[in-house]
Order: sequence, then C-alpha cells, then structure tokens
Amino acid sequence: MPNSNANEESAAAKQYIYSFAGGAAEGDASMKNLLGGKGANLAEMANIGLPVPPGFTLSTEVCTYYYDHQKTYPANLFETEIPAALKKVEDYLGKKFGDPDNPLLVSVRSGARASMPGMMDTILNLGLNDTTVEGLARKSGNARFAWDCYRRFVSMYGDVVLDLKPADKKQIDPFEEILEQKKHELGIHLDTEFQVDDLKDLVARYKKAILDKTGKTFPEDPKEQLEGAIGAVFNSWNNDRAIVYRKLNHIPGWWGTACNVQAMVFGNMGEDCGTGVAFTRDAAAGDNIFYGEFLMNAQGEDVVAGTRTPLKIAELAEGKPEIYNQLEEIRSILEQHYRDMMDIEFTIENDKLFMLQCRVGKRTGLAAIKIAVDMYNEGLIDEKEVLRRIEPEQLNQLLRPVFDLNEKKAAIDGGRLLATGLNAGPGAATGRVYFNADDAMEANARGEEVILVRIETSPEDIKGMNAAEGILTERGGMTSHAALVARQMGKVCVAGCGTLRIDYKAGEMRVAGKDIVIKEGEYISIDGTTGEVIAGEVKTKNSEILEVLIDKTLDPADAPTFKIYDQLMQWADKYRKLGIRTNADQPDQAEIAVTFGAEGIGLCRTEHMFFGGDRIDAMREMILADDLAGRKVALDKLLPYQRDDFYGLFKAMGSKPVTVRLLDPPLHEFLPHTDAEIKDLSGKIGKSVEEIKRNIESLHEFNPMLGLRGCRLGILHPEIIVMQVQAIIEAACRIKQEKKLDIVPEIMVPLVSTVKELEITSEVIHKTARSVIAKQGIGVKYLVGTMIEVPRAAITSDQIAQAADFFSYGTNDLTQMGLGMSRDDSGQFLPIYQQQEIFARNPFESIDIDGVGRLVSISAKEGRSVKPDLKLGICGEHGGDPATVEFCHKTGLNYVSCSPFRVPIARLAAARAALL
Amino acid sequence: MPNSNANEESAAAKQYIYSFAGGAAEGDASMKNLLGGKGANLAEMANIGLPVPPGFTLSTEVCTYYYDHQKTYPANLFETEIPAALKKVEDYLGKKFGDPDNPLLVSVRSGARASMPGMMDTILNLGLNDTTVEGLARKSGNARFAWDCYRRFVSMYGDVVLDLKPADKKQIDPFEEILEQKKHELGIHLDTEFQVDDLKDLVARYKKAILDKTGKTFPEDPKEQLEGAIGAVFNSWNNDRAIVYRKLNHIPGWWGTACNVQAMVFGNMGEDCGTGVAFTRDAAAGDNIFYGEFLMNAQGEDVVAGTRTPLKIAELAEGKPEIYNQLEEIRSILEQHYRDMMDIEFTIENDKLFMLQCRVGKRTGLAAIKIAVDMYNEGLIDEKEVLRRIEPEQLNQLLRPVFDLNEKKAAIDGGRLLATGLNAGPGAATGRVYFNADDAMEANARGEEVILVRIETSPEDIKGMNAAEGILTERGGMTSHAALVARQMGKVCVAGCGTLRIDYKAGEMRVAGKDIVIKEGEYISIDGTTGEVIAGEVKTKNSEILEVLIDKTLDPADAPTFKIYDQLMQWADKYRKLGIRTNADQPDQAEIAVTFGAEGIGLCRTEHMFFGGDRIDAMREMILADDLAGRKVALDKLLPYQRDDFYGLFKAMGSKPVTVRLLDPPLHEFLPHTDAEIKDLSGKIGKSVEEIKRNIESLHEFNPMLGLRGCRLGILHPEIIVMQVQAIIEAACRIKQEKKLDIVPEIMVPLVSTVKELEITSEVIHKTARSVIAKQGIGVKYLVGTMIEVPRAAITSDQIAQAADFFSYGTNDLTQMGLGMSRDDSGQFLPIYQQQEIFARNPFESIDIDGVGRLVSISAKEGRSVKPDLKLGICGEHGGDPATVEFCHKTGLNYVSCSPFRVPIARLAAARAALL
Repeated sequence: MPNSNANEESAAAKQYIYSFAGGAAEGDASMKNLLGGKGANLAEMANIGLPVPPGFTLSTEVCTYYYDHQKTYPANLFETEIPAALKKVEDYLGKKFGDPDNPLLVSVRSGARASMPGMMDTILNLGLNDTTVEGLARKSGNARFAWDCYRRFVSMYGDVVLDLKPADKKQIDPFEEILEQKKHELGIHLDTEFQVDDLKDLVARYKKAILDKTGKTFPEDPKEQLEGAIGAVFNSWNNDRAIVYRKLNHIPGWWGTACNVQAMVFGNMGEDCGTGVAFTRDAAAGDNIFYGEFLMNAQGEDVVAGTRTPLKIAELAEGKPEIYNQLEEIRSILEQHYRDMMDIEFTIENDKLFMLQCRVGKRTGLAAIKIAVDMYNEGLIDEKEVLRRIEPEQLNQLLRPVFDLNEKKAAIDGGRLLATGLNAGPGAATGRVYFNADDAMEANARGEEVILVRIETSPEDIKGMNAAEGILTERGGMTSHAALVARQMGKVCVAGCGTLRIDYKAGEMRVAGKDIVIKEGEYISIDGTTGEVIAGEVKTKNSEILEVLIDKTLDPADAPTFKIYDQLMQWADKYRKLGIRTNADQPDQAEIAVTFGAEGIGLCRTEHMFFGGDRIDAMREMILADDLAGRKVALDKLLPYQRDDFYGLFKAMGSKPVTVRLLDPPLHEFLPHTDAEIKDLSGKIGKSVEEIKRNIESLHEFNPMLGLRGCRLGILHPEIIVMQVQAIIEAACRIKQEKKLDIVPEIMVPLVSTVKELEITSEVIHKTARSVIAKQGIGVKYLVGTMIEVPRAAITSDQIAQAADFFSYGTNDLTQMGLGMSRDDSGQFLPIYQQQEIFARNPFESIDIDGVGRLVSISAKEGRSVKPDLKLGICGEHGGDPATVEFCHKTGLNYVSCSPFRVPIARLAAARAALL
Repeated sequence: MPNSNANEESAAAKQYIYSFAGGAAEGDASMKNLLGGKGANLAEMANIGLPVPPGFTLSTEVCTYYYDHQKTYPANLFETEIPAALKKVEDYLGKKFGDPDNPLLVSVRSGARASMPGMMDTILNLGLNDTTVEGLARKSGNARFAWDCYRRFVSMYGDVVLDLKPADKKQIDPFEEILEQKKHELGIHLDTEFQVDDLKDLVARYKKAILDKTGKTFPEDPKEQLEGAIGAVFNSWNNDRAIVYRKLNHIPGWWGTACNVQAMVFGNMGEDCGTGVAFTRDAAAGDNIFYGEFLMNAQGEDVVAGTRTPLKIAELAEGKPEIYNQLEEIRSILEQHYRDMMDIEFTIENDKLFMLQCRVGKRTGLAAIKIAVDMYNEGLIDEKEVLRRIEPEQLNQLLRPVFDLNEKKAAIDGGRLLATGLNAGPGAATGRVYFNADDAMEANARGEEVILVRIETSPEDIKGMNAAEGILTERGGMTSHAALVARQMGKVCVAGCGTLRIDYKAGEMRVAGKDIVIKEGEYISIDGTTGEVIAGEVKTKNSEILEVLIDKTLDPADAPTFKIYDQLMQWADKYRKLGIRTNADQPDQAEIAVTFGAEGIGLCRTEHMFFGGDRIDAMREMILADDLAGRKVALDKLLPYQRDDFYGLFKAMGSKPVTVRLLDPPLHEFLPHTDAEIKDLSGKIGKSVEEIKRNIESLHEFNPMLGLRGCRLGILHPEIIVMQVQAIIEAACRIKQEKKLDIVPEIMVPLVSTVKELEITSEVIHKTARSVIAKQGIGVKYLVGTMIEVPRAAITSDQIAQAADFFSYGTNDLTQMGLGMSRDDSGQFLPIYQQQEIFARNPFESIDIDGVGRLVSISAKEGRSVKPDLKLGICGEHGGDPATVEFCHKTGLNYVSCSPFRVPIARLAAARAALL
C-alpha cells in the first residue's frame, strides 16, 4: 500500500466524484482508470450530446481508499460531496431523492477499468420506500408498476446489501421461493398476473424474510439505502467470482472499481417503454450490420439475463421507427467518434430514448479481425491501428478446428441433429455433457473433453466454462452471459437453444418433440458457427485458414477468413523485428508450422524421437547396458532411426535453420513402469526382471529435475552425443547431396551451467562432426550452441558465450530453477499464489519478467558483451505467449520459438511489440 | 587452452631449463610456479651455499607444453638445450654422461608447485648401461655396488618408463618375482647376499623380462634413457594416483610438474655412506628439536619407503659427529633463511654431506600452530605471519576428540593394549579393522568407522586412508608414506608398529608374543598422540581445548595446547572483520559454540525441533489434519515444546542474537514410512491406516526440493507461522522477565522468491508478535528477515530488501537451484565433474564463487543499494569452509554462521581473509 499515505495527504484537495448530465460532464472517455469504463463512457456520451440520464461517478480512488482504510470512506464523502452531486441530478430532473410526491430513483452500478460483466453487484430503483412508492404510483399513474419496482428493489437490496442469499448454490433463492409460494397460493403462473395488493404483500413478506433470516431491517431512509448500495458495490470488487474473473483475465486487484449513481429511467413502465442492448456491428462474425436485441416493457437485466428471449433490433424499426432511426444515428456517431465497434445499452421510457451505457464491444477473434480490417478499408483506422486492435490470442479462434463437413453431414443425415440454437461462439467442439460447473471441472481434470450444458449461465459458472470445450444453453440471446463470456474466452458456444429440456436433477436433457435423452457423460457436438447441436461425436478438422494453407488446390478467393488472416499477417511481418521459429520434432508438425510462417525450428527435442515402437526398446537397452560396449550396441540400433528423423525434419524445413537439442531428460523417464512392461523388456534385451528392477531402482532420483540429465548425460556417456551428432550430420549430408539444400544444423547442448561443460561437450561434437564430414566428403556447416536454462549459465553468460555460436533460453527450466518451483508440484500452491497476487500470471504460462526475465536480460547483455552478434532465441513454452514475445522483443532477442499453432499469434505479438 | 598460442609465439625466446651448481643457480625459492617446489629449493640451497649436487630443472612450462601439444616438446629441447645443461654438470663434476670410464649418473624426479609425495615417478642411477656400469665399478672400486645400482636402475626404468608392472595390484611386482626366484635358486634370503655375478644375471633376466612381456628393449643409450625418463615424469602428472591426490588437495591439473635432473650421489656405496630425512622441528608435536632418521649404506627410498626401520638422527651425532654438526648448522641456516620448519633430505657419500632436497615441512595441525607461535616468540615472524602460516583446517586436528583417559586406562589395565608404535598422526580413533583400501572404502560407504591396517602404505592406498578414521602400519617411520599422508589428511595414525603380524590373505593380524588375533571387521582403537594400539572400542571424549573451555575448574596453565589455541584466537579476533555465528538448534550445541567463540546463532532450524518423542506425533497430526481446526488443535500441542526450545536456546546465548528460521522442509519429511509406524500413528491420531496412506500419497512430490516448502507452507497455512512466532516471542518475553536479558530474536522466512511472499508472511509475523507483546506487556524487540536461497530472490534483492531487516544466504539451496543440481542426486556425476575439473571443488563444500558467489554478490549489492545498513550473513554449510569465509569477507557480509566445531576455524579463516 505504498500510495496510501499520498492519498491521505491530498485527501482534502482530491476530487472523488464526477458528475454528468445533458451535454456536459466532468469526465471523459480517456479517464477510464479513474472513472471505470462505464463511468468514463457515460461522461463521454454526455459530452457528445447523446441522451444520457444524469448521474455521477465515485472514482476508483474511493474504492482503493476504502480497502486501504479498513473499509471506510474519504472524509465528507457522504456528508457533503454525494449530497451535492445528487442535488445536481435533482435540479436537472426537477425531482428529489426521497420526495414523497416526485421521488428521484437511482441505479447504483459498479464499473472497473476493464469490463467484468456480471461479476460485481448492481442495485436498481434505489430511493423507493413505503412513502415514495406511493409518490411514484401517483406520478406514473401506474400503481402496479410502482409496486413491482419496489418489490424488485427490496429483493435486490436484500440479496446484495443485506446478504440474504441461498445457503448453497443448489438451493433456490429465498425471494424466488416467496414469489413461487405466492403464485402457488394465488393459483397463477406468471409474474404479470400479480395485482397491486399481491405486490404489496410480497414487499411485506420480503422485508419480514430479511429481518427473520438476517436480523437486519430493510432501510426506509433513501440515504441509508444509497450508502448501503455503494458499500455493496465496492465489496463486490473482492467477491469470489470477481477474483476468479480477474485471474482469468489478468486484471490486477489493486485497480478497484468505480461506482456509478445514475437517475433511473424505466423500460418497464408500459408498452411505450422498452430496453435493449446492441453492438454497432456483428460481434460474432464481424459484419458491418447493426446487431442487437430488445424487449418492450422490461428492465435491462431481463435482456441480459436471458430469462425472456428478446427480439432482434430490426423489429424495432417496424414497431418504433423514430426510435430505431435515432438509434441508427447514434450508432453512426459512436463508431465515428470511437472508431471502434461499440456495445450499447438503451432504454425507452414513454417513447423517449436514453443511452445507459456504451463501451467498446467484446467480439470473437474472427469479428475482431474482420472489423479491424473493414475499418481500415473504411478509412477509420490505419494498418498499425489494425495490429494494435487485435489481441494475438484472438487469432487462436480462427485457427481452431471446425467440423469435418462430410462427417457432420452424415451425422445430420443420420438423424443426429438435436436442435439449432444461436451461433454465439464460433468453432466446433465435441465432448461429454456435464450439467454443472463443478462436474465439468472434475471431468476436465480427469482428461475428458467437456461440453457444459446449462439452462442459462451465471457468473458462478465461469470456472466450469473455462474447463469446457464448448457451452450450450437453453435460454439467453447473443448478448446473454453465456454468449459474452464464451466469446471472450474463445470457447465454442451455442446459446438460447429453446427446444432443449434440461433436467439438472435427473442429470439429462431431452429435446422437445423428439424421443431422445442425452445423459450426463454422453457425447454431443456443437457448432458455434451455425448453432447446430448434434448427438454423439463428430470429427473436427482443420480451420479454413489451415486448409487453404495446406491444400494448394484451394482458391484463397473463396476463403474470406483466410484473406483477412493473410492481410493481417502481411502487416504483422512488415512491422515485426523478431524472427519466429517453431518447436517441432516431427516432419508433419514442422510442415504445419512452416505454412503458419515459421522461419525455422527453434527446438527439436530429440528425446521425443525415442518413444515409438522398437526405438524405446533400443533406448532401454542402452540405458540398462552394463558397460560402454553394451551401450554402443544399443546406440548403433538407434542411429538409423535418428538419422531418418533428422532427414525428414530437414526436408520439411528446406534450407531453414533447425536447432536440435541433444538428449536432455533423466534416463528413468524412458524406463518401463509396470511389471508387464518390465517382463516384456526382459525377454527382449536378455536381462532378468530382477536385474532390470534393480537398475530402475538405482536410477531413482530425489529431485530428477536437478539430477543426472542434460549435458551431464553426455559428459558421463559421450557415446550418446557421438551417436546423435553422427545422425544429425549424416542426415544433413544426405539432404545436401539429394536436394542441394544447404542446411546448417544448430546443435544445442542442454542444461549447461559452466562453460567447461560446453567446452567438453563441444569437443566431442566437433570431433564427431569432422569425422562424418571427412568420411562423406560433403561440406556441411553446423553451429554449436547451448540452452540457457540454469541460473548459473544465465549469470555467467560472458564465459559461456565464448564457447557458443548461439544461446536459446529454455525458460521452462529457467523458471523452475530461478523460482525454485517445480512445474509438476506447483499445482498445490500456485493457484493460491495467483489469488494472493504473488504472481500476476502463472509464471509457467507467461514469463516472470522481474525474475526470470531479468536472468534472460543479464545473460543477453553478458553474452553479447563478448560476442556482439551472438544469436539469441527463446524456446520455452513461453515463446507463444504474447506478453513474453513483447519481452523478448524489448530484450533484443533474435527470435522466439513456439508450438506450430501459435506461430501466427507470435507473429502478430511481435508486430504489436514493435509498434509499442 | 587459451595460452597455447602465446606459448608458441614466444617459444624461441623462452627459457625452459634452469641450472644449479655450487653456490649459484639460475632460479630461486620464489620461482615455485615455474620450477616446482623441489627445483626452486634446490636452486635456493645452491644460492645460499649449501652442498647441493649439480643439476638442472625442466620448468612446469615444459609440462604444459607437452600436454598442449600431443605430448611433444618445445623445439630444440633435446637437441641443444638439455645437452647444454648437462654439459654444465659434466664440467662441474669432471664426469661425462655415458662416459665408459667416469660416467655421470643422474636422478630424474618430478616436482610440482605443491608437494605430492610419492604420487609421481622418479628414476635413479640413470646413465648406467652395460659399458658405463664397468666404468662405475672401476671408479668406485666396488663392482658389487655398481651392479646393484644397475640392477636397481633397470628395474625402476622397466617399471616406470617401459611399463612392466604387475597385471593387478594383488600380484607381485615382476622384478620382485625374478629377485625372489634368484634367491630361491641360490638358497639365500637377503639382497646383500648376492654376488656380482648374481647381480649381472639379474640385470640380464630383468632385460629379458622387459623384452618378453612388453616387446620393448631396454635402451643402452643414456640420452635415450634420459628422454624416456623425462617423458615418464611428465606422464606421471596424470596417473590415477596423482589425479586423486590433486582432487583431495584441491590442486589444479593445469599446474603441471617440473622435472629435476640432478647428479647422483650415493648413500649406498659403503659404510662411509648413508642417507636420511629430517625435519628442523618435530612435525608431530611442534617441539623445537631436530627430528629425523637415517640409514647408513642405503639409498633415499629405503628410508622413505619404510622397508628398513631407520635410526634416529641423534644417533648420527655419535657415529658421525662432523656430519651431524654440519647438518645441525644447515638446520639453523635453513630456519633462519626460510623462517619456517623445513623438511630436508640428505645423502652422505664417502663421508661427504650432500643436500638433496629441502622444502617447508608438512606438519600436524598442532605442530603448525605450536611452531608458528614459537617462531613468533623467537622473533622469526610476526603475529600476522602466524595467522598466515596456519591453514584454518589444521585447527580441526586440535579440536578433535581424544580418548577418555579412564576408559583407556581400564582397557590397558584389562590387558587390551596390543602394541605401541610411532605416534605419527595425533588424535584418537576407534573403528573396525580393514586390511585394504577397497574394503575400507566399502565399509565406510556402509556407514562403518574404519581403521585401515597395512603392513605399509603406498600411494594406491590414499582413497582408503581418506575413508578411514585412522591408519595403523606395521612398518615405516615418522616420515613414511603413511605418516606423511595421514598427518596431511588430519587422520589419526600409528606407524611402524613392528610387533604386529599382519596377514592379508587370512584377513587378520596377530601380535608377536601375544596369543591374540584381530580379524577383519573387529574393533580396535589407536591413539595417534601416544602410539598405543588397543583391542576393542575405547570411548573418545573432548579435546583438551574443549575441556578447558567447558570445565571452568581446569587451570589453562596446565593445558599447553589450550594456551596456544587461545593466543591464536586472540590474534584472529584482533584482525578479523567478519562476525562468526553458529548453526544450532539445541541449547547444548549453542553452549559449545559460544565457548568456541560464536557471537550468535545464524541459523536455528526449527524443523529439527519437531522430531523428538511426542512432538513428531503432534507434527504428523498437524500435517494430516483435514482442516484448519484440526491443524490448530495439533499446533496447540506443539506450541509449548517450541516455546521451551526457544527459551533454552535464548538462555544459552545470553543476549547474543539468535536467528530462527520458520518451518522449511516439505511436510512429507515428517511423515511415517513403514507400515508399523503408520499403524502406530493411526492409533494415536484416530485416522485409519488407509486414510493416512492416502494422505502421504497426496503429499508426494516429483521434485520436493522445488515443491511445497519454505514460506509457501506459511502462505498456505498461516497458522503454522502464528504458532512459531508466538513461541519465539513468548520465550523472549520470559527470558527478559526472568533474566533481564534483552534478546532480539531474528525471525527468518525461508525460500522467499518474491518480495510479496515476504510481505504477506511478515504481516502474519508482526500481527502475532504484536499481539503476544501486548498480551504479555513486555517490550520485546525482534527483526524479520529472509533467507536468500532462491536465485530469483538473489537477483531481485533490491525489491526484497525493502521488506527485510536482514538477509541470510542459504547457500546450500542457492547452489542446488543456481546450478540446477540436487545435492542428494549429484553423487552420480559430481565425482566425474571434479575429475574433469568442471568444478575445482565440490560446490556443496566450498562455494562456487563464479556462479553462486556471483548471485550472492549481486544480491548484497542490490540489497544494500536500497538499505545501506542491511545486515548480511551466510548460514549454508559453506559457512565453515575457509575459502567461503574468504569470499564472504571480500563480499562485505557481516557474518558467517557454521557448525559449532568449526567456529574457531571460521574465526581464523576470517582473520586470514582480512590479512590478504
């Protein structure tokens, strides 16, 4: 809390509240850090003359003050500052907060820098009490409306502020329970059938339930209501859902939320009222069409929560053409003003349009790319801005598999099409059905592919959504919680599939009009691009982009997604400085990577080559040999395999560089585990079962990560290096002879911690290579370099560089050793570490810049101090993480290497880093 | 080989050979690096006018050239330079190399910078052949002598140069075999019974054996002999024995050896000839008496090898008073000149004295200290030089246990005294008897205490000597191989115990005149200070120094060793800058450490406190608890134990600082392993055996070193920290109240890698401490600091220092993580790493200065950059290693902390570091 003192000192002078009303505001869109996204955009909309109900924003500094000071507020906030801000609203509208005749009602909403949809709390209709409800009834001429508002307010306040919640997630909401009881008593089914007196009775029952179950009295005083609601909003910044969401989205806890207090407008006052949400373009496909939904005579949450299925925005043009035209004009103003696709909320009160929110719209990866490229074509943004607009991770969605069309057609022809819902999150997913988040997470942990199926989703479900391949809901529109979150997570989603009949209790779902039952654990397949839901598994296949890349007979002109992708990659390559390589050890992986733009192989893990068929037997024979002669016999068997592997890889890469890492893992990783395997091996290599077991026992290590592996293997057994280098150089000779390709293998020594290790190993490499070259009479060039993955190597890189042609940072091990944290064992504490913000992100996913990053920086500097043109790359799994790519760019590395499917992501990330 | 080019360039100009003869030499004693110890001192003795046979030294640069150039020599070495040097010797003596009438004979000996006794090869009598032997016979008038010299030369040359050796160590030497065969044929027993013709026949048989078994012909050409002998000397630098010896003594392989070629003088030409070795003072006890041994009519190796038991030097005074007086004068000249105790070799040829070697004498720790302090009193050296003279490790010998006198008396009174030999290595040792090095090593590896018993030892035995507690030999004097090496290793040794009858074959020893058999594996006890050998075990007890320190009733005036120790420690404390603390977690350890001069506790490992009796049950209950409540129940049981532990420790330390490390190891280290233990625990804590097993299984980690341990435990379970801090502060309060001692506990958080971890943990510590202090109403102060043992912590010390009152370097873990090397697993490769000189010393024994040391330096600099007075210490086991202490001094740490018995060693090392 280093800035808390500073806060206190300047507390008197500090502005904590920012008002907005009718064409003017104290804030603007640039002040998101202070006012949150919602508050900043309300101010901006007011400033550009859009119809915004008046209100004010308590800044995020109030929130941080609140948490830094044992949940208290800056001096005078409630005494003078809020009343003053409230007065402006009262004056503007000619209403008064708590006035028995003409009461001002307000909403109280959270609003952080980044959108966290549904994670925090909101209170509507605040200001109603037993007196003002009558004033509202009189003023609106609609007693039923007024009492329904009051009923909603009491239940919302009871839940959010007074904390009357179901004891656990499986129980029904206490207010819902009272409502259902009342319906049962009255013999009615719909909320709309309640009469005024019924609503009054409900209000009384709600208040009694609150008192009975929490011991708290519902406050009649509007000011007390307001203070309670503001406190609830700030408290909700640290509820479990919000913390999980922040972790998933890398939002730091210290940001805090702002709190917006705004005059209520009512979409539920009658049939000349309504409410809606819209995107200025299609958020799923990115097309330039006005895309939204609305409900007449409804409050905003009715649309978002998905409890009633809303109408398409186009239908508004028929019912309310003036309103629709006004909205279309606002759409245009907003896009020209923000130069981006916006997500808006509006309310119609007695045929008058009010804008309640506008923010940059969330979108699928496909939409993000299409919109950005379209806006470039429309002259709204330039190519650099296109690159800046697209989060590299969004590209992932375009690269992901789709269904094999033949397979899908066969499934549909075979009668397996269950239903069609909204195409809310593109892509194809197949998996086992689970009906709640916990079961989904457990199944995922077991290694199953999961489709999470819910009637509708709520913020409690996000962990389960994250664990699922895809999400299917019965209710809710394109802007429902499920749809929004799924798109953001890059999950496949089919929403609002109304013919499903989901039964949580029975753990099954049926389809209206069909004689079919899908039980928990059974397979379904969902197509988030078409909305189709299909029983059983449907094979997935390459994305359109990959198909065009691989299949040269396809015409890119027929592949609109490919065209956008291709344009984007051209721009990325124009600006990026970093080279992009791939981690691959099989020719097919290498080919895919090259089509995705890989400029070489940054890491070929030779150990992966030893696992197939007979190879593993020879490998085991080598490990279990009693002496050098025995090891050589086994190595001679491995040699032809290795040579063929390298030949295939070199061939796939053409003349691009290939970095081959010599054998790295602890030998026991190759050994058999079960008695059956041991017995089988015993027969094959002619050693007794007991002997093999004794051998395996003797290879046991307490901390294998820090044991006999890497270059240590080759220093103890140089014959292993000899075999591997012979295979590499012979393969390169063959390629050169057959294909006239000048491949320059980069031979990489792992786990070096001292220059001496590299010198000793290099000597064996050079001796072997020279001998092969002399024997073959073919002039092949090669480089010898090292992984920098041990902290000692990083900090003695000036020494090590003298013996190395290149460095490649093995940031996985560098993280394990630098942080003293075993990746395999960190699962016990890393989640709690992230929760406590000890690490903002999982350091195995995104490089720990302060620690591991510093080791890399020191090494790069020291290494280049003795060898200015030392080639530097990174080959840890971090290489495909955009934040890490940015770090590598800043640190001056030559390239990053990542898995084949992340190559385009790394290209984009590298361009964005160069544009920072 | 970075300097090999430089060598070549200046090859023409470089002086490779340094001559010495009669009062003048090209070298001197300061040129040890170039001429080796022996060569430099021969030159020095020549310069100061002592009678040295003329000769020349091939410098160590010849050796490094030889190894850098595929075993070839610098240009012209054999063509012109050696002949020129040889000519000087010829001219000085009036003899000629290879002359048939008056042949010059030479010795060819190795001589490195540091003495490596017996590790490398030597050739004597070189220059003899079938022609020159007759010349020597004529010239000496002693044909028997001449042919005996020739016989010895041929066998030595055959062994060393032509490589005719026994096939394995158990077989008899081939030349010895021929000799025994000849004796058998002649029916004689002693070498002296051979007649001239017998010797001629032996020479012929030797040459035939060489030709038959090696295919090589013994060279008649003296020049060829010389070239062969020089090559053998250089080759012997890298024989197995030499490599092992260098490793044990931290001598780098790149030093190389010099090679001394010197005119032969003969101690075996008749009864007016002789040879001897002496120390200018007693090398065992340090007394200022002339101490040596000689044999008349013998060659040097007869004395050193221990094959004949030599006479005491005092007897020379009776037999040859002029020679003795001349030697006494030389002794005085040498001590005044070198201002140190010297080890000399001399030969008497026809009543003329020649000095063959002088070097600083090896000595026991006791002697080193006594001699240095005596020389201070004699005005030869100052107190700084005293400190510089004593290797800290030598102190170890004075601190080591001795026999309990009552126990020993009882054993002797009970008739268990077997024999009395020479008191060749002081101290007391008890252990099981093994008769060869391999068996001794194996027994040691099994965990047994071993006494190595040999008829005599040879360089092949050093590994076995190193594995033994003590060494006992049947033959050999105070300067025998066994005695020299044992003293240097700090091993207990009784040598030349002539009444023993050792039978390797039967695996037993008897004692002449006694009806007793000691079989392999049975216990004996040896007193290296008195020479006594006792059957069975005798209890050992504290050294004199420790006794005086502990038992205040003893009069230090009666304790001469203590007096010297005490003087030395006073000088050490006068010059050292580093504080010295100890690692201790029990009051008795702490008390011993304080008597040894510890100024505080640098590391109290709290986990050691959890292992005794009921504690481990409560600890296990805590670990296996299902929830927080269960953990708290168990922690409440542990609290009183912890509090008492800390109370005892604080009491022992008075007001000295005590650093307490919070719980560190992975929890599974505390859990039961066997079924019986699990069953027992099951009954005690009321959990089923299956449940406990499941729990243990769930705590399994792949790399526990990098898993859930250290501060991670406390972040997941703050209640553990709460208990420990409560115990610490309550104990401090009690001490303050009872003893009026202001103890300031230093609470140390382990395994921190980010400042945030330290902040979170510190918050719990402060909250707990404040609450205890408030409750007790006693104003106790405390510090909160951290171990720096994770590389990330070291390189982000600027951040971490902001939250720490002190740093303590945990160099064990810093080595493991920094080098990516598990201590427990490194045994597989570290010996090979040391052999290949990847690490000069075991990095777990002496800090790896380039790597781990750099992390410490970076951390110290960064930490002090934000907190200039940050207290820095080291608490890894390296803290007691003199080289590490020197590093810590240079790096500006405030203190080192080591085990109690190493405190005096660290004090001395710190003083020496300050005097560098």
